[in-house]
Amino acid sequence: MTAAGEHSAPGAAAPALPVLAVAGLGLIGGSFALALRQAGMVSRVLGVGRQASTLARARDLGLIDCAVSAADAAAEADLILLAAPVGALGGILAEMGPALRADGVITDAGSTKMEVIAQARAALGHRIGQFVPGHPIAGGERTGPEAALADLYRGRAVILTPLPENTAPAIAMVRRAWEACGACVEEMEAAAHDCALASISHLPHLLASTYVVQVAQSADASRRLRLAGSGFRDFTRIAAGSPEMWRDIFIHNRDAMLAELAAMRNVLNDAEQAIAAGDGHNLQRMLEQAADVRRNWRQEQSE
Amino acid sequence: MTAAGEHSAPGAAAPALPVLAVAGLGLIGGSFALALRQAGMVSRVLGVGRQASTLARARDLGLIDCAVSAADAAAEADLILLAAPVGALGGILAEMGPALRADGVITDAGSTKMEVIAQARAALGHRIGQFVPGHPIAGGERTGPEAALADLYRGRAVILTPLPENTAPAIAMVRRAWEACGACVEEMEAAAHDCALASISHLPHLLASTYVVQVAQSADASRRLRLAGSGFRDFTRIAAGSPEMWRDIFIHNRDAMLAELAAMRNVLNDAEQAIAAGDGHNLQRMLEQAADVRRNWRQEQSE
Repeated sequence: MTAAGEHSAPGAAAPALPVLAVAGLGLIGGSFALALRQAGMVSRVLGVGRQASTLARARDLGLIDCAVSAADAAAEADLILLAAPVGALGGILAEMGPALRADGVITDAGSTKMEVIAQARAALGHRIGQFVPGHPIAGGERTGPEAALADLYRGRAVILTPLPENTAPAIAMVRRAWEACGACVEEMEAAAHDCALASISHLPHLLASTYVVQVAQSADASRRLRLAGSGFRDFTRIAAGSPEMWRDIFIHNRDAMLAELAAMRNVLNDAEQAIAAGDGHNLQRMLEQAADVRRNWRQEQSE
Repeated sequence: MTAAGEHSAPGAAAPALPVLAVAGLGLIGGSFALALRQAGMVSRVLGVGRQASTLARARDLGLIDCAVSAADAAAEADLILLAAPVGALGGILAEMGPALRADGVITDAGSTKMEVIAQARAALGHRIGQFVPGHPIAGGERTGPEAALADLYRGRAVILTPLPENTAPAIAMVRRAWEACGACVEEMEAAAHDCALASISHLPHLLASTYVVQVAQSADASRRLRLAGSGFRDFTRIAAGSPEMWRDIFIHNRDAMLAELAAMRNVLNDAEQAIAAGDGHNLQRMLEQAADVRRNWRQEQSE
């Protein structure tokens, strides 16, 4: 599929989303563009980003047809995906708001929803109905346009947290785009999303990162790191993720993070007391619950 | 190699360890036996274990030639590897002590060393010099004789924590066996080993397990587990490990575990305060240190 889609042969079906815009051409945004191109859903893809070099690489890689400003993307696109770090979304939405096409729809890929929605309300005002919040549960440590994969979303969950102001056609447009990427779309309240993600994504990242810092601060850090094996490797893999992205997520999702941390501390304190007391019975009960849950999860997911 | 090694043809070199005994025929013990057989280091392998079915499978799989009692193994073997959970080692050593061959050497694969050494001293008395403590840094979630792999130890670290009573030939025998498995052997003080392993192996296991318990105890646990993705998968993989084995390790290595937990809590508290205060600067600094350390570790290890 090339940028010539608008001049396609008579009889060819018009693509569902003639103009797609993607703000943030990394793994998430780039993969969305690639997948929709492959699905024949789009004719033109506009790229928005801060760094000209990233946009040039995205164009060379065929992710986008051309780079435009946020305002121009808002004026032209049928659908816009915001795939920049959540800390940058408010600013992008403020640039897009005044220029937004009357029937254009914006969605996002932010890992938190309550704070992004608050920023979208502030930026878009009475046009907030054109913003359908979303979050694809996918990712990886690879970053930049080169990391984009057409099948990144195949079989993965995408959560939409629609607003009361969203129209059914706007929600359907976003759902159809993600389904064309192969994703399984489900809807959820934004608050429930933020609690669930604080638990299964944000807290593990904080624990892995603080753990690595603690190891690095020890007097024999180099020996420890030299002896670390496959358990350490897997447990800390997420700590290699983007510091800026995770800083924004933690601050955006503060209340849910603090609640999960408090709950985690309670369980950890119980375990610590059992170790201190040599209480093998309670330790084993805790370890058995963890092993059971983890083994069953693995079977369900067939990893 | 068959059990006929003792009747080998004239001119064939005698194996370095004519009789090997392994107590505990799971991944660790089974892989040691397989690797030494492949290396031509042993003629006969005796198996010691509590469960007859496990010993029968180990024999069918060619890991051992026959099953014997702990006392018979002690009386016959040139080298004995104790690869049972650390909580069982004291009992096995007590059975072996009185029968131990005068020139026999025992080593172990226990994840903790200080407590195992204390139990060995109690069990072996004046024969403690025949016990060379060790720990291969290798493993996996697969268990039982079927999990054994001849190349499990290739390129992996094996730590020996020799005792003042060990003779140089006894240490050399253990070192040579591990090197024949392809492992990189290094020596270390037992206390330093226990601190390092508490940090890079035992604490991650405790954090992953308590985290999984905390998720499982939440009101919306099933939704959380359904949405959990690859970050959760890697972060919690170790929590599927043997509850009995890890219970023993935590209790054996109590002091080092409590010290690491206290250090971890300090870093986690700092991060929590930064999140609560919206202190992006300190959060990012912490996340950058973690990402830098983890990325550099990955490069060094080339995962």
